[in-house]
Amino acid sequence: AQISLEQDFETQRESDARFRMIMERTNEAFAIVSLRTGRVTDSNTVAASLLGMAGDDLQDAPFAPEFELRKRGDVMEALSAQAIADRPMPVQVTSRKSGTHLRIIPTMFRASGERLLMCRIEPEEGGSIIADSLS
Amino acid sequence: AQISLEQDFETQRESDARFRMIMERTNEAFAIVSLRTGRVTDSNTVAASLLGMAGDDLQDAPFAPEFELRKRGDVMEALSAQAIADRPMPVQVTSRKSGTHLRIIPTMFRASGERLLMCRIEPEEGGSIIADSLS
Repeated sequence: AQISLEQDFETQRESDARFRMIMERTNEAFAIVSLRTGRVTDSNTVAASLLGMAGDDLQDAPFAPEFELRKRGDVMEALSAQAIADRPMPVQVTSRKSGTHLRIIPTMFRASGERLLMCRIEPEEGGSIIADSLS
Repeated sequence: AQISLEQDFETQRESDARFRMIMERTNEAFAIVSLRTGRVTDSNTVAASLLGMAGDDLQDAPFAPEFELRKRGDVMEALSAQAIADRPMPVQVTSRKSGTHLRIIPTMFRASGERLLMCRIEPEEGGSIIADSLS
């Protein structure tokens, strides 16, 4: 059992290392949000910067209060609806701190029995014109 | 010990799920290469596509033979040198299958006692002119 534990620990550390490394090396903004708590479980510096925050200030923060939805409604509800939609659309929001117009592309997934949202966040000007005109 | 094992397994699965999800959701091309074997341990569809391959055909493949180095020398040596450099430069290569001019931005990291290269791969036109003119 001791050897199994050590092997598990090594495998887990390897997964963690790969995950931390890609979060750090990508130029895109990513935040993972727990649907149960509404809080950010993982985020990168690019995401914090887009939201007018420094370094890892987004980590563990409640996600929805960072945004104003550009249509009426609730941010987490809009994200959850798009995350499970057949033809998901980006959710158009404005960052409360930076005032930037942003698009959030959410995908739902499960880990440890919890539902999580993987959110890619893009500045509006970086997005496609088609998606904007359709929404 | 049983509970610990289960907890470890859950944590490991959670790390794996997050890693697989971000690899799938990013628009950037990523491949992780083992320095010991020279083979790709993880890659995404964007990376395979840039190298003229389909789906997960890059997975487990030897990495270096996919490229021609634009300067003289060995691909893995060039990547390793830049991965540990103080001021790393992108490594300029041409994909043998697709003929595309590419830049590889490598970062070295360790997992389970093994040295790995996290490689971000970009088409040349997407890169900055400054980095090209400096090299």
